[in-house]
Formats: sequence, C-alpha cells, structure tokens
Amino acid sequence: MIIPTFDDALAARQRIAPHIHRTPVLRSRFLDGLSGAELFFKCENFQRGGAFKVRGACNAVFALDEDTAARGVATHSSGNHALALSYAAGRRGIAASVVMPRGAARVKREAVLDYGGRIVECAASNDAREAALAEVLAETGAEFVHPYNDPRVIAGQASCSLELHEQVEGLDALVAPVGGGGMISGCCLALSGVAPRVAIYAAEPKNADDAQRSLRAGHIVADDAPQTIADGLRSPLKPLTWHFVSQRVDDIFTATEEEIVAAMKLIWQRMKIVVEPSSAVALATILKNPPTFAGKRIGVILTGGNVDLDRLPWPVQSMAC
Amino acid sequence: MIIPTFDDALAARQRIAPHIHRTPVLRSRFLDGLSGAELFFKCENFQRGGAFKVRGACNAVFALDEDTAARGVATHSSGNHALALSYAAGRRGIAASVVMPRGAARVKREAVLDYGGRIVECAASNDAREAALAEVLAETGAEFVHPYNDPRVIAGQASCSLELHEQVEGLDALVAPVGGGGMISGCCLALSGVAPRVAIYAAEPKNADDAQRSLRAGHIVADDAPQTIADGLRSPLKPLTWHFVSQRVDDIFTATEEEIVAAMKLIWQRMKIVVEPSSAVALATILKNPPTFAGKRIGVILTGGNVDLDRLPWPVQSMAC
Repeated sequence: MIIPTFDDALAARQRIAPHIHRTPVLRSRFLDGLSGAELFFKCENFQRGGAFKVRGACNAVFALDEDTAARGVATHSSGNHALALSYAAGRRGIAASVVMPRGAARVKREAVLDYGGRIVECAASNDAREAALAEVLAETGAEFVHPYNDPRVIAGQASCSLELHEQVEGLDALVAPVGGGGMISGCCLALSGVAPRVAIYAAEPKNADDAQRSLRAGHIVADDAPQTIADGLRSPLKPLTWHFVSQRVDDIFTATEEEIVAAMKLIWQRMKIVVEPSSAVALATILKNPPTFAGKRIGVILTGGNVDLDRLPWPVQSMAC
Repeated sequence: MIIPTFDDALAARQRIAPHIHRTPVLRSRFLDGLSGAELFFKCENFQRGGAFKVRGACNAVFALDEDTAARGVATHSSGNHALALSYAAGRRGIAASVVMPRGAARVKREAVLDYGGRIVECAASNDAREAALAEVLAETGAEFVHPYNDPRVIAGQASCSLELHEQVEGLDALVAPVGGGGMISGCCLALSGVAPRVAIYAAEPKNADDAQRSLRAGHIVADDAPQTIADGLRSPLKPLTWHFVSQRVDDIFTATEEEIVAAMKLIWQRMKIVVEPSSAVALATILKNPPTFAGKRIGVILTGGNVDLDRLPWPVQSMAC
C-alpha cells in the first residue's frame, strides 16, 4: 500500500491547478446564528464537474506517463468520480471508460457522455461491477483509477483543504462528509502539513454509519449497499482511507435522513446555492452537536452540487403560473 | 417628479455600503458556450434579503431625517421589496408596515416577520391595496417608500450596476429584467455616469410584456394583473421608471413561460445557484436572440433567489431514499 505524503499533495496541487477551480468560501449569517459557530463553507459544488472529485481524477490522469496514458483510464462509479475522470481524461485527450450500474442518475450519465467518457453498464451488484471493470481493463489495457482507494486520488483531494487553509485564518476544526473516505483522507493529508492542530471531524448518514462503527471497532466495517439519500456516501472505507481516518480523524458524527434533507434545504434556502444531499451531511451534524462546534471557527466542505432537479428529496408542488 | 441624478446614485452607494453585500460576479463556461457570448452574472440572489431590493430600500430608509424616520416606513409589496424595507427599517431601528395581498408567498411573509416588519393583509386587488396602505399611512404617519417609483429607490438600485462596472471590464451590454422598472432604471442611471456607451437591454415575460409595448407605443401601457411565473415582474412601469426606460433602454426582449423555466433550471443545474423565476428572464432572452448578444461581453443581473422550495415551476418527483 502506497501512502501519499504531504509532498505528494503539494505536487498534486501544482499539477492540477490548470484544470480545476480554486473554489470560493461562502458564509451565512443565518447558519452561523443557528449553529452558534462561525462556518466557512468551501464550495466544491462550484468545482469543475460540479464536485471535488475532479481534483483527485486530474491528479491521477496527469501523473500518468505517456505510454500508460495512451491506453486510457477506467473506473467504476455511479456518481461524481465517473464524470470527474471523464473530464480529466478529456483534458488530457485520452479515453475514459466508466462502469456504471444501470439506473445511475440521468444527470450524471449525461455529464459523463458530455465530457467524452464511455459508459459500460452493469447490474447493480458488486460482483457485476467487478466483472465489467475486469473486462474493460483486459480489453483496453486502461489504467484503473479507483474513486478513492488510490494515493494519487487522495493527494489530489488534499488540494481542497490546502486552499481552504489559505482562504480562512485560524480554523479550529474542519468537517467533511465520509463515504469511501477520499475527501476526508485528503483533508487529513493536507492538514498534517499545514495545520496539524486543527481538529478533523467526519460526517456520515446514520443509515450508512460504517465509518463511525469502523472507528469504534478499530478496523474496517463494511456494509452491503446501505440505503441513504446521500448517494455519494454509500461506499465503505478501504485500506488507504482507513489509514487516514483511523490515524487522524478526531470523531465521526452521523445524521438521519430527515436531518440531511433539512440541512440541504437550509443551504439552498439561505445560501442560495445548490448542493447535493451528501454535501449537507456535514452541516446536519454540526447543527446537532453544539457542544463540539459552538463558539468555534469551522471549515465545512460542501462536496458537490450534482442534483437531478426533477427528483428532489422532499415533496414539491409543481406551481402552475 | 424628482428624477435622481448620477450624484444621487454615488451618494446612495456610500450611504448603503454598511448595510448591503458587494455581490460576486459568476461565470459559466457552459452558458457561455450555449449563448455564444461572454456572460457575467451579477449575483443579487446572494444579496442581503435574497434580492437587489435592499439596495433601494436601504437608501430610502437611511436618507430619512430623524423626525420622519421616527414615524417609520410603509409600503405595499407581495415580494422582495416587502422584506427589503423590513430589513432596512430593522437596521435603522424604526418600524416598517407592509401591505401584502393574502396568499403572498409564505417564504416572503416569514422573512418580513423575521426582519421585524409588520404585515397588513389585504385582498388581491389594486383598490384594496391602495385602501389598506392609505389607512396605514393615516394611522402611523409613516413614510411611504414605493417599490420602484421613488427616486431614492432607483438611486439605491443603481449601486448594483456601479459595482458590476468595476468588477467587469469592457462590457458591451447589460441585460436586466423589467417589471416595474426599478432595477433597469438603476442600471440606466449608473451607466449614464460611468459607461454611457454600454447597451442596455430589458427582459420581460411574454405574458407581462407591457414594458415592450410601452416602448413601442411611446407611452406607458399598463396591464391589469398579468399572469406569469416571474412574480417579480408583474408590475407596470410608472412615470419615473418610464423616464429611464424610454430615454435609455436600447430594446426590450420577451421570453415565454417555458423559456423562463428552462433558463431557471439551466442556472440551477449549471451554475449551482438558486435564483427565482424573475431572475432567469434575462438569460432566457439572451439565449433566443444570438444576433444581438453573440460574441459580446454581457452583464446579466440575477435579481434574486427567494424561492419557495416546496413549490417549483416544473414537475418534481419526490425521491424516497
């Protein structure tokens, strides 16, 4: 297992700079009041491809030597990593093949195709996914870029917290959602170099609380296909992300589906920005744990904004004009 | 009729600076590609109170002498001016009474109350509104601040284009929605001083195209309660705004309800920001008039983001998790 270093994170940041946005940090007086904290929202929903995933994908793609790159890249993902890798490959002018389960969100499928990626459909099971990916790799010789259990990907994600650290002085803590753990591992890696005393908290859905149970058990606990509205957070930790989570994360908090949806609506309503459910989990956990967060300066990673506007997680009346 | 001058606009900008945000200008590669233009979106959806209206309301409220201010302010509005005036009055510590038709959007009613405003309900007709307002004014001695036909309000709205002019170099044209005409008049006033050669276009719903017909007829044409999803754009021009529109606006374009909703969804989907239907009318007209806009640098005023998320103007499936 190759564990990325802080130097890898610095190199990644340099490498991906031409291909990503330095996203803004937004604030909300209303949410500060509600939480009793000072919240600094790092808006990766404004990132290229609509989510932080292009950071890791671009680092993986642009780190490849010419010969490897020529054979293209491949991955499995039903979500933002799929379009991020397609975007990165497109920027380098190489092929990207993405194994996606049938039934993946239309908006994400279309984005993959828009970026020039190729979609290989499979049934919605781990076995079917592995089989389809193996076939793609055998057929193309493409480089596999795992959505998060990959040192190049984690080093790329670290650039997000490096930026946040420059944009906001004196943070006491940082909160990011945890699914497979790519983003939170990137936070750990970045802060290890620039702000080792800032607390790091992970947030996850109660319905997919495998990371919290892993941290308590002292080893990876993986669930089979947990159901949560936060579709970016259904994946289990893997050895590389477990390394960072187990060594550096101070605590993991959970939020119910109702709390996630309420936090998502609050962000849309009060900050006037579109974030996906996975992005809202961090705020949801902050609002329910004032003893940990009140009175502090908290960085909050809003991980993405790719939502199918025709399917929202609350009842909506269609308004005739 | 007192016509505000460019000096009034400069004074307004100074006066309201402590009470408003200098809103950011966002871009979208996707929408640039779609329009063939370079679009610079002035994001008044991020403004205090969720819309540009606080600019004019703050200018009116903070320009009052002490004695007048002590009697409070009043207005009629079903929308953003209602909460803007409540916000401004709250900042100055004076009373605000707002005459609102029964059935006004819940989210706007709640915001008025949150800011400490008093709501006086009336039936949804012009007569009922005038009668209710007259009663409030007689009872309180409050200063009436019209939503747009007021030189203090127009001078305040002008600050938006003054900022945009500083934020973006070399604009060829500016597009803003027109309802009663407060924002577009502010654009005219601001650019008269800093960029007299920049073209100014107004955008309005086809269903409420009274400003376009006014411009063609050479006098104000007012409709009785036009029906459009763009609820901020149902008001007719008044003498003061007609002055600016007739003298300075280069042309007025219209968009159908379907085009407005499509543009609104595009902005949410691609820019990851929440804007209200009235805000989307400008983009809708840009997309359908490439001969006027393609190849140019265009400022686009996104006027506000106060949307009831439980009522949206397209069919939404509620997604169980």
